[in-house]
Amino acid sequence: MSQLIDGKKLAKEIRAELKLEVDELKKLGINPKLAVILVGEDPASKVYVKNKSNACKKAGIEFEEYLLSTNTSEEELFSLIKKLNGKDDVDGILLQSPVPKQININKAFSLISPEKDVDGFNPVNVGKLAIGEDAFISCTPYGIVKMLEAYDIDVEGKNVAILGRSNIVGKPLIQCMLKKNATVTVCHSKTKNIEEILKRSDVIISAIGKAKFVKQEMVKEGAVVVDVGINRMDDGSLVGDVDFENVSKIASFITPVPGGVGPMTIAMLINNVVKAAKERK
Amino acid sequence: MSQLIDGKKLAKEIRAELKLEVDELKKLGINPKLAVILVGEDPASKVYVKNKSNACKKAGIEFEEYLLSTNTSEEELFSLIKKLNGKDDVDGILLQSPVPKQININKAFSLISPEKDVDGFNPVNVGKLAIGEDAFISCTPYGIVKMLEAYDIDVEGKNVAILGRSNIVGKPLIQCMLKKNATVTVCHSKTKNIEEILKRSDVIISAIGKAKFVKQEMVKEGAVVVDVGINRMDDGSLVGDVDFENVSKIASFITPVPGGVGPMTIAMLINNVVKAAKERK
Repeated sequence: MSQLIDGKKLAKEIRAELKLEVDELKKLGINPKLAVILVGEDPASKVYVKNKSNACKKAGIEFEEYLLSTNTSEEELFSLIKKLNGKDDVDGILLQSPVPKQININKAFSLISPEKDVDGFNPVNVGKLAIGEDAFISCTPYGIVKMLEAYDIDVEGKNVAILGRSNIVGKPLIQCMLKKNATVTVCHSKTKNIEEILKRSDVIISAIGKAKFVKQEMVKEGAVVVDVGINRMDDGSLVGDVDFENVSKIASFITPVPGGVGPMTIAMLINNVVKAAKERK
Repeated sequence: MSQLIDGKKLAKEIRAELKLEVDELKKLGINPKLAVILVGEDPASKVYVKNKSNACKKAGIEFEEYLLSTNTSEEELFSLIKKLNGKDDVDGILLQSPVPKQININKAFSLISPEKDVDGFNPVNVGKLAIGEDAFISCTPYGIVKMLEAYDIDVEGKNVAILGRSNIVGKPLIQCMLKKNATVTVCHSKTKNIEEILKRSDVIISAIGKAKFVKQEMVKEGAVVVDVGINRMDDGSLVGDVDFENVSKIASFITPVPGGVGPMTIAMLINNVVKAAKERK
């Protein structure tokens, strides 16, 4: 049986440490604040924003919510972002995705000041991460790095398969894993021999959003399996990209869903807001 | 026997087309100009700058050379970059690498205005390429993409091994190959099973700077082999990362050194200067 990578517990520890750091910052007159913009009525997004709000409050971070209607124009959103860029008391700006169709989200991300871009989606931060400079690292990949570190899982020279090439998870993960000296293979919808690739991988990180896609027979005995997927089943339950019940029989380490990568994502958001507040003062 | 990918011939064709485009731009009063900065006395760099200068002149592009002494300070270099950013007649700015130790080259690249960053090394362009936005793509990876296209080599769903993870070649190549829907594996100095990975790859792109590293027995029959390496041997001759003589017996397509990737790099620089000039006017 695998050892469980307890993201929930680790995230709690990280957030407790960050709270102490926030307490110290406040003594210096620095009050970290995050502004979150939510456009439209996506129910999952509302839950995510609520969770982020709770986590901020628990860490002592001020939280401003900007709820914009579904038919918000690009102009309106962009002018809000510019206003928040200019507000000295706002340290971090987060635009919750997805946004309605009339908005070009990459354009919106590129308008967020790189110094306040706590999600790490502005091209400046994406580029800095790639060339090895200090940057805001997007929260999910960063959380995965922290999990692996916490469990002393060294990926140097290991074959790491990343499933999915999204701008939010897969692509920044490539950079994070290369920085850790892993040999990285990126798989996606056009990959033909995905089972073969997974079978020979020492570490599998799945972020494709297909329920129970990664099956026991695709996984090498003793592999480390990280599951980024959050898929809602017809019965309302949440499952990951990995067939946890069976894969956990042969993996050496595995993350559960929920309670794995998800809580770490929020912890790293808090981390990035604290980083932004420190660097801006 | 493999088919030779004739980079020299293809680059000549591309440059001839670009010359026609420059002629048209001039009729509209647009005179593309590249400014190149060379710091120090590196002999190879001098040759590269000379080649770039010749290629610009042949394409009708104006060329300004800034030769700085080996002991140039960061301050002096950065102030020159800022001056060139502000010069309206300069469309592209290229800082030749390597630079002397006292200069942080990433910092220098990040100061080049993204609109004039024809080498694509500014984090803004690196990031835009990664997230799929229009960007200046660094010239060597871009040249490789154009070579594969010209020879109708479709990498979609193919296993592409990239050897080397430099900011200049390997990392932007990852993005270019993912965009073409290849399944990408990145190998580097810490990769343990490099022969195994190469042996099952449909396409091998080597940019590690080790003479004749890729041997016939590492290559799958019918694979496409692209050689970015330029290694000078004791007898003064130039060889690539690939043992051309033997690998060419089994590859389906192969690039020679010299006459492969090198000329394409210069052609794509010309392409990027023309792009910059068009977009700035």
